[in-house]
Amino acid sequence: MEIPVAFCLLLFLCAMSKTKRPLILVTNDDGIFAKGIRSLVEVMTELGEVVVVAPDKPQSGMGHAVTINGILRLNPVHLMDGVKAISCSGTPVDCVKLAIYKVLHRKPDLLVSGINHGANSSINVIYSGTMSAALEGAVEGIPSAGFSYLDHASDGDFETSKNVARIIAKNILTNSLAEGVCLNVNIPKCVSKDLQGIKICRQAKAFWKDDFDHRKDPGGKDYYWLTGEFQNSDKGEDTDEFALENNYVSVVPVHYDLTAYHALPQLQQWEFAL
Amino acid sequence: MEIPVAFCLLLFLCAMSKTKRPLILVTNDDGIFAKGIRSLVEVMTELGEVVVVAPDKPQSGMGHAVTINGILRLNPVHLMDGVKAISCSGTPVDCVKLAIYKVLHRKPDLLVSGINHGANSSINVIYSGTMSAALEGAVEGIPSAGFSYLDHASDGDFETSKNVARIIAKNILTNSLAEGVCLNVNIPKCVSKDLQGIKICRQAKAFWKDDFDHRKDPGGKDYYWLTGEFQNSDKGEDTDEFALENNYVSVVPVHYDLTAYHALPQLQQWEFAL
Repeated sequence: MEIPVAFCLLLFLCAMSKTKRPLILVTNDDGIFAKGIRSLVEVMTELGEVVVVAPDKPQSGMGHAVTINGILRLNPVHLMDGVKAISCSGTPVDCVKLAIYKVLHRKPDLLVSGINHGANSSINVIYSGTMSAALEGAVEGIPSAGFSYLDHASDGDFETSKNVARIIAKNILTNSLAEGVCLNVNIPKCVSKDLQGIKICRQAKAFWKDDFDHRKDPGGKDYYWLTGEFQNSDKGEDTDEFALENNYVSVVPVHYDLTAYHALPQLQQWEFAL
Repeated sequence: MEIPVAFCLLLFLCAMSKTKRPLILVTNDDGIFAKGIRSLVEVMTELGEVVVVAPDKPQSGMGHAVTINGILRLNPVHLMDGVKAISCSGTPVDCVKLAIYKVLHRKPDLLVSGINHGANSSINVIYSGTMSAALEGAVEGIPSAGFSYLDHASDGDFETSKNVARIIAKNILTNSLAEGVCLNVNIPKCVSKDLQGIKICRQAKAFWKDDFDHRKDPGGKDYYWLTGEFQNSDKGEDTDEFALENNYVSVVPVHYDLTAYHALPQLQQWEFAL
């Protein structure tokens, strides 16, 4: 019996694609030695080949900042055996750009960011370095997700979050994501048996009522620390805040088209004589 | 003839509201001594009482970064006679927060950011400190706009941009903006007579093809400068990039709800067994 060459080639390609493990880029904003990123790396090594490029120091609240007026450095570090890990002097978004163009020299099959020590739900998505790294992945066309655990403790228990990250990452690798979309995943702080499930949500209209702690330095000069109180007046049961309050993991699809389409008709009525 | 007290009070309040000038907060990301912000302040003094709180150094590309792991300073500076001006050690978003809570002690009637030296159209909106300041205004419920002129020169000619800023600011003060929406205004570099008009647009799907300039320091160690090439494959005639290429001012309404609503149905199909 004669077997066509094309069929043999197809069989070979199928076998190759099944044995080739996905390339997974891991980053965060708490710094490369945070417990959260180590937890995420541990899970991702089960699913693929892992490369870590993450900030050499805490970069929380850096939003989508990029370093354009300064230089960037990369330094290999040891995080765990068998995992290539590089610390970067820049922001989380810098890490993603350098990882793609100077470390991997290609786009990874998956980008995961976190696990953040603390929430990045609702309005926090715009301030969050963790989520900005994931969003930069989406800009680059990489299936991406940011994970955040609602506990600021540096030695928090990430076991439940690891399980959630595994489930979400498997889903992304299997089902992919719509073009230009990444996921904002927040995990409530509760014991594993109390976790109610995983909910797909929209971003709640919740905000920070800012304040500043006004102090004097030893020389008598004024300085300020940002403080604030989180306020949620959005009672929608389809929101991330509602999910988290009810012990669900919240998953919000996030994109970078900031156009407020609903506002276009009003603006079309304006008078613009130059 | 007897005139009711309530009617007299109404007349008084009407007279007061007509004479009271709007309070306008001006900020930017190029720093408080940039030519662009001076140009914006000159125009805004025609429209209201102006207070400036802006970075003490260039903060381009800082996106929505906030200072949460460091202190902030405010220092009065002289910008022009009759205008209260304060430099801030933080990011553009820090400037907005400090201005509201520690300088003005109330929300201004209008927030304008810029005039930026260089474009903030399409994807640049997420990296831009100029636009993040405006977006923070929207988060705070303040009618806000960011202005950017497509010329990086520090001594650029801002006369056309000033005229555009005047028209847009008057429109905002007259018509207000939808809740949670600010404007991303970009002004093409062309002589005034060639300017075709002002167009309401959506954000184009245009991106940076990043690259890095890899160098060695005097000690032989590697470092990197972010570079890149702007690429626009979105040919939509309703985009900001199309408007600018055709010598129109582009105005994109921008909001902070990053939910990718169109991606929700796909995600609802995923398997999430914990």
